Amino acid sequence: MKVLIIDEMHESITALLNDINLEVDYMPKIKREEIISIIENYEGLIVRSKTHIDAELLKNANKLVFVARAGAGVDNVEVEELDKRNIQLLNAPEGNRDALAEHAIGMLLSLFNKINTADQEVREGKWDREGNRGVELMGKTVGLLGFGNMGAAFAKRLSSFGCEILAFDAEKSGFSNKYVQEVSLDMLKEKSQILSLHIPMNAQNKGIVNDDFLSEFKKLEYVINTSRGEVLILKDLLNLLKSKKIKGAALDVLENEKINSLNQNELSVFQELTELKQVIFTPHIAGWSIESYEKINKVLSQKIKLLVEKRDK
Amino acid sequence: MKVLIIDEMHESITALLNDINLEVDYMPKIKREEIISIIENYEGLIVRSKTHIDAELLKNANKLVFVARAGAGVDNVEVEELDKRNIQLLNAPEGNRDALAEHAIGMLLSLFNKINTADQEVREGKWDREGNRGVELMGKTVGLLGFGNMGAAFAKRLSSFGCEILAFDAEKSGFSNKYVQEVSLDMLKEKSQILSLHIPMNAQNKGIVNDDFLSEFKKLEYVINTSRGEVLILKDLLNLLKSKKIKGAALDVLENEKINSLNQNELSVFQELTELKQVIFTPHIAGWSIESYEKINKVLSQKIKLLVEKRDK
Repeated sequence: MKVLIIDEMHESITALLNDINLEVDYMPKIKREEIISIIENYEGLIVRSKTHIDAELLKNANKLVFVARAGAGVDNVEVEELDKRNIQLLNAPEGNRDALAEHAIGMLLSLFNKINTADQEVREGKWDREGNRGVELMGKTVGLLGFGNMGAAFAKRLSSFGCEILAFDAEKSGFSNKYVQEVSLDMLKEKSQILSLHIPMNAQNKGIVNDDFLSEFKKLEYVINTSRGEVLILKDLLNLLKSKKIKGAALDVLENEKINSLNQNELSVFQELTELKQVIFTPHIAGWSIESYEKINKVLSQKIKLLVEKRDK
Repeated sequence: MKVLIIDEMHESITALLNDINLEVDYMPKIKREEIISIIENYEGLIVRSKTHIDAELLKNANKLVFVARAGAGVDNVEVEELDKRNIQLLNAPEGNRDALAEHAIGMLLSLFNKINTADQEVREGKWDREGNRGVELMGKTVGLLGFGNMGAAFAKRLSSFGCEILAFDAEKSGFSNKYVQEVSLDMLKEKSQILSLHIPMNAQNKGIVNDDFLSEFKKLEYVINTSRGEVLILKDLLNLLKSKKIKGAALDVLENEKINSLNQNELSVFQELTELKQVIFTPHIAGWSIESYEKINKVLSQKIKLLVEKRDK
């Protein structure tokens, strides 16, 4: 069985796949046209996010058994196309959920304690205590929109901070546990002071967190997005921040992350956001740790192994 | 009973003390000489940290029953002088331990996930994912030097991150609980990858965390200090960072926090530290939240109430 890898991955992947008797062609610099021309030779395709996996890319994929996404989100994969061709889709949220959860807590605490701006000030020789007084997470109500691997890992970390943790997931129920209380979307909007987004990007979720949606929250103070940029309308977030209807935001992802080729409207919103001290940014690195880089390979190769074993029976 | 307050405090203090029938003179701008001249009129003195409470200050304090420190550390108070005069010393670590613990976790996660530098980069239009890959707290062994209110609150927050948590306290034992394992100092040095300082500043602890001390750690990677700057020799820390013997540090406190009047040696060490990306700074604001500002007053007034009640019996 042959596997084509079309993105850079931690070097452990080849040995892991060889161990389960797969032949690996590691071609991280391959172009789209070339993938299309050689895909017919492969039973497996492993991708990150740069290539859109659609009907055109798969037109010659006659032997393909699985597409594996080295990460959590599968928004670069047209799931219906895979279904049509009976190709299995695998992903590895178990590999980067811990990194994501730590990053999300870090962003919130950095924002709440002004760590990013205070650090800059100290480096510049300014020692301002009163101006950098923080706010506490303790006692706050945190609402999670989406409760998959990422939401659950974030909630687990939050559990030691003395917060009330609520979660709504449009696609599942019955997931309350000792630290998270499953609620309706109405209740989430009624009670959350901090809203954390953990939903996948897909047609239904595109732009779902907009002015209408956010304005229905009764006590909202902070928004954190470590999911996908396209689910949150930044223009609307900016307006809520400027009008002081919300106090702050932590953004690991943006609607358009090619920040050097934004259009005029996108650029103006981005620039206004970057001028606000009550917003903190990171470049889509939640889930992006040295450890997760390797853990993702372990999770993926394990899932591929199960799939191959099942198929060989 | 009359109380003199000689530092700025959250405005709630006056009402809280009046409620327990104390008369309050709130004089946050009072000078040392004036304190000395009027202290004989007071049964209580409430301080933060700018005034050194010593024999000279107390020479006329004939009625003084208590000195209350609006915070945790009492290094500005000469305890032996109070003992001599049978003056009770009160402090309020229960009021700011939660703020401190959140801040300490925030500093560690910001350092581990490069949140401060990544935030700066994004604001400047740079979107570098690979250069900002983080490291995970999960699975690491965290050693706490000191296990008072601050250490315990920090350990509680850490408990949801999947770390091994060890603690040594020279002044107490028998404090292991479901998430912290009490160990000897030798064992702390044997196993800790992250060292977090939670000791008070006093004659024994001044400069205790120096090159000799740190070099005895076998696996040390990171040091975080949210206690008192004078316990950690920055020159030694800098050398360990420069020689890559340790990977990073988070510093909320410095040996000399008057950073605009450092001497030549202090300045050179400080400047070298600020040039390192693997060091993160905040200006002594761990424990310094909007909530803690008020909680400290509640804790202090409650302790004063108990003391007064006991005395009146």
